[in-house]
Amino acid sequence: MKLEDIQNPQFLKSYDQQQLKYLAKDIRQFLISKLSVTGGHLGANLGVVELTLALHKVFDSPKDKFIWDVGHQAYIHKILTGRMKQFDTLRQYKGLCGFPKRNESEHDVWETGHSSTSLSAAMGMATARDIKKTDEKVVAVIGDGALTGGMALEALNHIGHEKKDLIVILNDNEMSIAPNVGALHSVLGRMRTARKYNKAKEELESLIRKIPAFGGKLAATAERLKDSLKYMLVSGMFFEELGYTYLGPVDGHDLSDLEENLQYAKKTKGPVIVHVLTKKGKGYKPAELDQVDNWHGVGPYKIELGEKIKTKQAGPSYSQLVTDTLVTMSETDERIVVITPAMILGSKLEKYAEKFPDRLFDVGIAEQHAMTMAAGLATQDMKPVLSIYSTFLQRAYDQLLHDVARQNLNVVLTIDRAGLVGADGETHQGVFDIAFMRHMPNMVIAMGKDENELQHLVHTALKYNDGPIAIRYPRGNGLGVEMDAELEEIPIGSWELLKEGTDAVILTFGTTIPMALEAWERLAKEGISVSVVNARFIKPFDHDMMQQIFKANLPILTLEEAVLQGGFGSAVLEYANEHRQPVLLDAMGIPDVFVEHGSVTKLLEEIGLTTDAVVERTKQLVNEKRKKGLYT
Amino acid sequence: MKLEDIQNPQFLKSYDQQQLKYLAKDIRQFLISKLSVTGGHLGANLGVVELTLALHKVFDSPKDKFIWDVGHQAYIHKILTGRMKQFDTLRQYKGLCGFPKRNESEHDVWETGHSSTSLSAAMGMATARDIKKTDEKVVAVIGDGALTGGMALEALNHIGHEKKDLIVILNDNEMSIAPNVGALHSVLGRMRTARKYNKAKEELESLIRKIPAFGGKLAATAERLKDSLKYMLVSGMFFEELGYTYLGPVDGHDLSDLEENLQYAKKTKGPVIVHVLTKKGKGYKPAELDQVDNWHGVGPYKIELGEKIKTKQAGPSYSQLVTDTLVTMSETDERIVVITPAMILGSKLEKYAEKFPDRLFDVGIAEQHAMTMAAGLATQDMKPVLSIYSTFLQRAYDQLLHDVARQNLNVVLTIDRAGLVGADGETHQGVFDIAFMRHMPNMVIAMGKDENELQHLVHTALKYNDGPIAIRYPRGNGLGVEMDAELEEIPIGSWELLKEGTDAVILTFGTTIPMALEAWERLAKEGISVSVVNARFIKPFDHDMMQQIFKANLPILTLEEAVLQGGFGSAVLEYANEHRQPVLLDAMGIPDVFVEHGSVTKLLEEIGLTTDAVVERTKQLVNEKRKKGLYT
Repeated sequence: MKLEDIQNPQFLKSYDQQQLKYLAKDIRQFLISKLSVTGGHLGANLGVVELTLALHKVFDSPKDKFIWDVGHQAYIHKILTGRMKQFDTLRQYKGLCGFPKRNESEHDVWETGHSSTSLSAAMGMATARDIKKTDEKVVAVIGDGALTGGMALEALNHIGHEKKDLIVILNDNEMSIAPNVGALHSVLGRMRTARKYNKAKEELESLIRKIPAFGGKLAATAERLKDSLKYMLVSGMFFEELGYTYLGPVDGHDLSDLEENLQYAKKTKGPVIVHVLTKKGKGYKPAELDQVDNWHGVGPYKIELGEKIKTKQAGPSYSQLVTDTLVTMSETDERIVVITPAMILGSKLEKYAEKFPDRLFDVGIAEQHAMTMAAGLATQDMKPVLSIYSTFLQRAYDQLLHDVARQNLNVVLTIDRAGLVGADGETHQGVFDIAFMRHMPNMVIAMGKDENELQHLVHTALKYNDGPIAIRYPRGNGLGVEMDAELEEIPIGSWELLKEGTDAVILTFGTTIPMALEAWERLAKEGISVSVVNARFIKPFDHDMMQQIFKANLPILTLEEAVLQGGFGSAVLEYANEHRQPVLLDAMGIPDVFVEHGSVTKLLEEIGLTTDAVVERTKQLVNEKRKKGLYT
Repeated sequence: MKLEDIQNPQFLKSYDQQQLKYLAKDIRQFLISKLSVTGGHLGANLGVVELTLALHKVFDSPKDKFIWDVGHQAYIHKILTGRMKQFDTLRQYKGLCGFPKRNESEHDVWETGHSSTSLSAAMGMATARDIKKTDEKVVAVIGDGALTGGMALEALNHIGHEKKDLIVILNDNEMSIAPNVGALHSVLGRMRTARKYNKAKEELESLIRKIPAFGGKLAATAERLKDSLKYMLVSGMFFEELGYTYLGPVDGHDLSDLEENLQYAKKTKGPVIVHVLTKKGKGYKPAELDQVDNWHGVGPYKIELGEKIKTKQAGPSYSQLVTDTLVTMSETDERIVVITPAMILGSKLEKYAEKFPDRLFDVGIAEQHAMTMAAGLATQDMKPVLSIYSTFLQRAYDQLLHDVARQNLNVVLTIDRAGLVGADGETHQGVFDIAFMRHMPNMVIAMGKDENELQHLVHTALKYNDGPIAIRYPRGNGLGVEMDAELEEIPIGSWELLKEGTDAVILTFGTTIPMALEAWERLAKEGISVSVVNARFIKPFDHDMMQQIFKANLPILTLEEAVLQGGFGSAVLEYANEHRQPVLLDAMGIPDVFVEHGSVTKLLEEIGLTTDAVVERTKQLVNEKRKKGLYT
């Protein structure tokens, strides 16, 4: 069958191994060629071509439920469920989502993005099935990296206890987003090597040779013992102890091995782990040879050359700049250490890893532990920096509140990808952190207007000794501004008056500063004079500046690339109210909906965060003020 | 040494076993007698008397660091570090905290309250030590229940990987807050029983008897094999696999066994687990015999009778009422299931467990898994209810946002202990949930004015089919109002005008309604006529009511037992602003600080949430309005 003719996976039932092989080849070619134009999660998908074919052959989706952990490896699943033609629009505005999406297909039963949710979801679905007395199968596909996330371990534990009928496919590609860490990984590692059948047999025999005839009675259950020892030694005592039947390791690129094990898993009662070994990037040499996971999520590339197509960027990458600043400061301040939850590559921490290998801790996908470990370090007068994406910081909400803010510890958060992230969409937009950190006592929250101010803010945060401080920065590259050679300290809570005007004031920070300045220029041409304030500290406020604004009695436009509910605009309202200062205020930001995938520009347009809108709404404010003569 | 003379634990160094035994007896008597008056965490502390003595004898606090997971078991530690005299004020306003508190003593190096943070904190402290090249020991004391929390598992994994020198005391009391669940527990259980030496030997011998002379060569390493098998079978292969040295199980009430093992642990390189078996309530029969953990956290009791002293309560317990409503509704709606993270007793779910044992899931201390399991159930048209304390809901922030709200799933949250909780203090106040849920798209948040409205709201939530809905209710007992026999549905987003007035309007909900009504009465006597609105839906708002309020152009007093930043008052400001409605508003609530322990009444006084203050601030608002003639 041609890929474009696939409506649903039914046709696979009658496919033989040869046909499946050809199909796998077609799918790989399609992905390599298509993603070279659109970009996307190439490596992860090339790794699960055979696995996805086998799953759809053995099980009956959508009756049987597939839950893709993280979800960026579901491209083949999307092709097999009739969505091949939509790949031209992959991860684009109103186009095919890069993750499973329930409104795209009945075959997508669970939406993901953040890691380690699949086992809990599977447990919920299997429990529903058992109560309803239906007989569908529930299959979670989880990577070895995602398995170290606390919530996956919680679920693994509970599922084992309940002996729930469900199947966990452990997609062990020897690499999570970055080379995996953790003792769990080494357990898997030992299983991986030891279980290769011959090796295991050798080890077993060697071990058994050492066994004396203790007690003098030799039973005739050699085979049974072999199984028993093998069972304990090499087949995942870890999982077995937790109550699972362990199958594997299975060659994840061997269709018949896969099919056989999946069929067996399907028939097995209770929880089953199928340990599948896959190779990320399988079938595309540059991605296969990739040791550092550079081909995890890619932009467009030249297929033959295996070269990524570079787009010209104005300034340096924000992440790189933060790393550079951390490196500089760590040279003179020995108290600084950096913690990352599996994002060395994502947050461009390689240079830090090189320079200070003993002061960089990649804890794996374990945001909660990362935050509280930072808190522990801070109690001992260290200066821990937790480098974390805004969206993943959500996982450590309680640890930030209960362990860090409550104890008022000197933990520095460098929050990467704050604001809209674009193609990754709904699950990854970094738009909630202000609203969820602002109500934490003791927190300082800041964001720079450009890469130069960002470096000063990081420096400021590392010098700050009065509690937790978070420095947000967006995904992508800086504006290309001139960089100061000397790092400066920016007074905590100080704002910056960028433009002075008499008709209104725009309060904003970070990514929306250029928008405000553009609006300022256009408004000036129309004879409207506005102040533009760089409110770089979202908490605490600049009290003097606020008093000046109150005194000038100007209408206020707040502008933020973050949620409005409980956000910065809301903070300005609270502040004015607390100071018994009536204000005419318009708050621009992200409304009370989840923002889907697409280019950031498109998304900003959709939610009305544009220069046009800033100009328009400022004019309305000024008119409103003039008309009503409010508060004057 | 008399308990009241203890300044620090140094004296223990020269104590012999006999002296320690007497001391243990004195401490037990002191605790049983003192807590019979003050109340407190009796069972947990009686269980760790010998353990705490041994720890303070073997290690040198404060140089060596003790980290008490959860922290309610640190009473003996407090006595040994010179705080015996403060026990009269235990858990009272400005009195001794029920948890470790850094400003109380240099021996308290880490503050806890929420479970499962100790290993991450210990990892941070041990890492700081190694970077600073000092030589203190870091010791975390964690219960078997807390160990199933995801973040503890994340830390266990990372510590094992890094082979960090630190000591984990697994305080295995066969019971976490409620009888523990999970496969991990059964691993511990098997270890517990199997390791009893004789039993283990029997099992080993029986197993070894079955071993054939495989390969024909019998080595003379019988003892070695015995150790090796024992090692794998019974002494925590689980921990060993993760890279720990496993010691134990140790009799947690045998001082010499404890001392010996702790000394050994102190000398061991790399991470060590000391598996200590303790008995909760040890030394006080009613608590020892307690099978359902009724003596976990207690109020005053009669020592001789082992009877708790009951205080007269106006109405039924809110928790019990919620359970009763869930039971009633589950009788006719088979889709309802209830999930609790180890709080069957805390949230009084026993009756549900009895009536619907197959529809109640105690997942252990695993809030993240609990939330996403609920989400999984909801995708299959079930009606999952997650019963959770407000403070513990913080742990599932991302799961609520990313898995439940984003997929707009019909998950019902019954949020217990919303608002100030009193004696448990800072770590347990349920005052953040409104601020952290309000910015989640699709969320409905409600709180009833009394137990009767609460039952209707729970009923309403179970009938609601448009997404997630959270029903908050306070700790303690209802007001004693009359209960409707029939459950009603309250229209989503509808408020209730309780009193109609012409000078101002008080918008409030839940626990502060009685305060508002009292203020209303007093204000009426002074000739000030205020409206009182039961804003039972915190999200979404009652648009009609808000329009009426705008039309009447009344100054608004918002009143909430929750944080002000991003809270309900803030939502009213946002709403007015969005509707371009200038308002004169005063927001009463919890300011931007953490609220310590003490009776709720005392705490409300401290933060200025009293009837007096409501009266005063309403009068100010009315005067302000009259004086300025604002907006009229």
